[in-house]
Amino acid sequence: MTVQSRSAARPDSVTTGPIAGSRKIYRPVPGHPGISVPFREIALDPSAREEPYRAYDTSGPYTDPAVTIDLAAGLTPVRRPWLARRGFAAVPARAVRPEDNGNIGTEHLLPPCPADHAVLEGRPGQPVTQYEFARAGIVTEEMIYVAHRENLGRAAAVAGAAERRADGEDFGATIPEFITPEFVRDEIARGRAIIPANINHPELEPVIIGRNFLVKINANIGNSAVTSGAAEEVEKLVWSIRWGADTVMDLSTGRNIHNIRGWIMRNSPVPIGTVPIYQALEKVGGEPDKLTWEVFRDTLIEQAEQGVDYFTIHAGVRLAYVPLTATRTTGIVSRGGSIMARWCLAHHRESFLYERFDEICDIMRKYDVSFSLGDGLRPGSIADANDRAQFAELETLGELTKIAWNKGCQVMIEGPGHVPMHKIKVNMDKQLAECGEAPFYTLGPLTTDIAPGYDHITSAIGAAMIGWFGTAMLCYVTPKEHLGLPDRDDVKTGVITYRLAAHAADLAKGHPSAKLRDDAVSRARFEFRWEDQFNLSLDPDTARKFHDETLPKDAHKVAHFCSMCGPKFCSMKITQDLREDAARLAGMEAKSAEFAEKGKALYLPAAE
Amino acid sequence: MTVQSRSAARPDSVTTGPIAGSRKIYRPVPGHPGISVPFREIALDPSAREEPYRAYDTSGPYTDPAVTIDLAAGLTPVRRPWLARRGFAAVPARAVRPEDNGNIGTEHLLPPCPADHAVLEGRPGQPVTQYEFARAGIVTEEMIYVAHRENLGRAAAVAGAAERRADGEDFGATIPEFITPEFVRDEIARGRAIIPANINHPELEPVIIGRNFLVKINANIGNSAVTSGAAEEVEKLVWSIRWGADTVMDLSTGRNIHNIRGWIMRNSPVPIGTVPIYQALEKVGGEPDKLTWEVFRDTLIEQAEQGVDYFTIHAGVRLAYVPLTATRTTGIVSRGGSIMARWCLAHHRESFLYERFDEICDIMRKYDVSFSLGDGLRPGSIADANDRAQFAELETLGELTKIAWNKGCQVMIEGPGHVPMHKIKVNMDKQLAECGEAPFYTLGPLTTDIAPGYDHITSAIGAAMIGWFGTAMLCYVTPKEHLGLPDRDDVKTGVITYRLAAHAADLAKGHPSAKLRDDAVSRARFEFRWEDQFNLSLDPDTARKFHDETLPKDAHKVAHFCSMCGPKFCSMKITQDLREDAARLAGMEAKSAEFAEKGKALYLPAAE
Repeated sequence: MTVQSRSAARPDSVTTGPIAGSRKIYRPVPGHPGISVPFREIALDPSAREEPYRAYDTSGPYTDPAVTIDLAAGLTPVRRPWLARRGFAAVPARAVRPEDNGNIGTEHLLPPCPADHAVLEGRPGQPVTQYEFARAGIVTEEMIYVAHRENLGRAAAVAGAAERRADGEDFGATIPEFITPEFVRDEIARGRAIIPANINHPELEPVIIGRNFLVKINANIGNSAVTSGAAEEVEKLVWSIRWGADTVMDLSTGRNIHNIRGWIMRNSPVPIGTVPIYQALEKVGGEPDKLTWEVFRDTLIEQAEQGVDYFTIHAGVRLAYVPLTATRTTGIVSRGGSIMARWCLAHHRESFLYERFDEICDIMRKYDVSFSLGDGLRPGSIADANDRAQFAELETLGELTKIAWNKGCQVMIEGPGHVPMHKIKVNMDKQLAECGEAPFYTLGPLTTDIAPGYDHITSAIGAAMIGWFGTAMLCYVTPKEHLGLPDRDDVKTGVITYRLAAHAADLAKGHPSAKLRDDAVSRARFEFRWEDQFNLSLDPDTARKFHDETLPKDAHKVAHFCSMCGPKFCSMKITQDLREDAARLAGMEAKSAEFAEKGKALYLPAAE
Repeated sequence: MTVQSRSAARPDSVTTGPIAGSRKIYRPVPGHPGISVPFREIALDPSAREEPYRAYDTSGPYTDPAVTIDLAAGLTPVRRPWLARRGFAAVPARAVRPEDNGNIGTEHLLPPCPADHAVLEGRPGQPVTQYEFARAGIVTEEMIYVAHRENLGRAAAVAGAAERRADGEDFGATIPEFITPEFVRDEIARGRAIIPANINHPELEPVIIGRNFLVKINANIGNSAVTSGAAEEVEKLVWSIRWGADTVMDLSTGRNIHNIRGWIMRNSPVPIGTVPIYQALEKVGGEPDKLTWEVFRDTLIEQAEQGVDYFTIHAGVRLAYVPLTATRTTGIVSRGGSIMARWCLAHHRESFLYERFDEICDIMRKYDVSFSLGDGLRPGSIADANDRAQFAELETLGELTKIAWNKGCQVMIEGPGHVPMHKIKVNMDKQLAECGEAPFYTLGPLTTDIAPGYDHITSAIGAAMIGWFGTAMLCYVTPKEHLGLPDRDDVKTGVITYRLAAHAADLAKGHPSAKLRDDAVSRARFEFRWEDQFNLSLDPDTARKFHDETLPKDAHKVAHFCSMCGPKFCSMKITQDLREDAARLAGMEAKSAEFAEKGKALYLPAAE
């Protein structure tokens, strides 16, 4: 069920309940009684004689019927005991100011989320960030958690992992057959992976982003001045993680921005990212020229205290690069990039984000807010792909990455945008080289400009490819891209599209467990286990609905055909008939032996 | 408007009228008064100061308001004068038999299409096929037509063609900057391209398929025994070419199959392909074991006389290869492949398609029906990709290609299927090597098995990539793949998805004119010419609808923002403001000059 709401309405309910055919399970980590990782288990038809399929699960407690969801109370803070042992300072929260919510009148003010929230800060000299712990050789609970999560709760590598690794093409990635907490620590210490995990986001179920792990996807939510309210945004969060978003960016820019974020943070089991310059701009009345370091700094602290896990910071948009965009077909298409470009030119000054980068690092380190170094000069059209403006900024992002690491911060790098297929790989290669293998986080890229309304698809092509080449996280694009604000259906379409693109990338890289799901679906398909095929798919509801449009009866769920071909023309039926007729056909083996590579396994009954 | 119909209803109306924002135009070929090629012209807002954009147009006369469509009369036979000059024999048509329409009772029999249709045959010794003309050094009207069509009616290469060619990565393709009829002839003579054009399909607007031309797409239509009727299929034809299908395959398998095909042929401006084994199987009561060469041969002649332009022939499914599929996860997933495999095993004999291949060639040559050599052993799952069964068949298709060429026939080769990204390129490379560069025509490939309901997208990823690598035509996949028969919306979604994939491939190959459309869309986007952006897109109706869902007013069609970001956060608006403030900003140039590569062109007003 979902809520109807006006802008100022408190969110009071969201979509809950299991995904069709799935059951929420929790797998403890042996030797670590305080750590239990959620998965989704899909039971198969007894005829399959297969164990239930266990899937990675981003959906949080919302899909667990045993959990009562109370948005006002927030989620259970699973990380609190871990954080409590680290000796962080409990500090008074920064007082909320009228401008934090866009100076909205009391009549329209969204009440703050009343969930309990004590603010923590790292003390000077102590390790705070996952990067600092990793560099100090310390394995955190978050590292143990993500290792178990990436292994899908297995205690050891799954059979055939080495063969699947060898079968892929990983372009230099080094995904192990089994992920250990020590491997996680080492990858984070090298800067090659991050766990975005603000110490003020205890409700988080940690997730790792890096090229030697499963490819992750991000969904964007957020209202704008034109449309959308508070309850819708919380529902969009829950809805997007239900279908597989690993992280969610709240790109809100309208009124009630602070309080909407509070409701999102306290109810989010996934890392939340923001672009703080958006709220800073709201605070100065929407005029980029009026932005100041002080307003920006205050906004960083405000959001860090709320628990935001990563900030997009467009510190690579340097004054000198702005003229490089002058002859572009589509200029600057990043909101943050265009705001900073305008500020730089209006003041004839270097960006304060660049000049104050050390101070930004110090703030973000104190809460372990990860950097997502924004690509403010990303190309907004095929014509502008891989131009000097884009690559000049990328080089600066590489420089800033090293500064942030020296300051103890976790870092990922944002990437394009609009790029034709033949120019995608150089983006990945250059990013790895310039940014010391820090995780790449790309928006698509869209591989053509000519299909507004279908840009989830133009971009899924580029996303799958760049994910294969090494991108760690793919920012989704919805069908509404370039046209309007996505609604609930668009969010789902975008998330599923990016889940399949990320999976295609994992498969091509030779991820040790990715192919297991393809094989499970294919076996179900070949054996006419329709319900299993639906339930194993990324979107069981849509698969079932499409099937039932032409063959709605229950009997058709066990039929050995579908409406595409009908019973006489079903190739799978014919092939099965062949195999089942094993005895009669056995005589064929001799005649065919000279051609057959695997003659001994001919025409086993389908069930074996 | 569309028809409501029962199975036996005569088709009486289809979707007509121009695509939003487009106008049908015909461009004569200088020096060839009998040849005029249709295009679609998209007028842009006067503020753009651009010529109308001219688009390739597959939609036939249905989008021309000046043409009265009468399905019973069929389309104007534009090729008839060309064919008349070639001296083919007019022969009496094969008499229609009850089994041609599945022995349906008179009550349910669909009346045949009454359009005038005289049957032609090539005489022995004279050139009949485009391949034979090309080998003889003769440039046909069809060759002139497709050259003009590929050039979008231009009289010379468009500005910047050489640069765009050089900017792409074509993997050995040699697309010229301007297509001449002689180039077309040479490509056909080399076997590297085909113009599927049965001499009994005078209504055809010729199209060329080859790796040195624009990438083409095919849409499948066709009823099955379970669902769909006659009028729906004619509407699906018209609907799929409206959105961009270059060819259409009629995969009908149910009753009335002969008469439905007649309605389709007489009303199709695009090449129609079929899989004759489907109808042959209907004629023997649906039992593969009962298939005979005589029934198959009769079906070839029946369909060739009706005007079918290409036949899928699964002659590569040899007896010896069937055991290679025994240990597959999904066995044989091609309908035609599984039918022939069953026949081979049941009779313990080599396939009659393989043994009688010479005779098949002789029949097809007589009408210039092109071969689409079917991949009956294509992989139906990631697990089975690139296995020995698949590649053994491909090697045989290479052998058959040479035989067909020797017999004077045009040939293309069908390809997979389900292939993970890292195994796609070897498919293309092996096809080129084995089949002497005959055009490759692939189904997707799907890059993962886990997303039924979204297989237009899983396959668009593979289709764009393999199109880039050199595939000449991409067979669409709809969202209903694996689940049911596509309806009207699914057909459109599949066609648009494949159009964008084909275009992404053209762009990456460096096709000399592909990028012009991306640039036109991007300029419109940057200049807030919303109507131009909609009209230039592949699907203006959907783009407009998505925009209007949140900003429905006419005033918003000229607004310098959309609902994604709202007015204050629109990056394009901010960038435009920057550029328009050129005078004030000019002072910046000196300070930035040391970084700027193109300092002299800074901050031109947007309209320049």
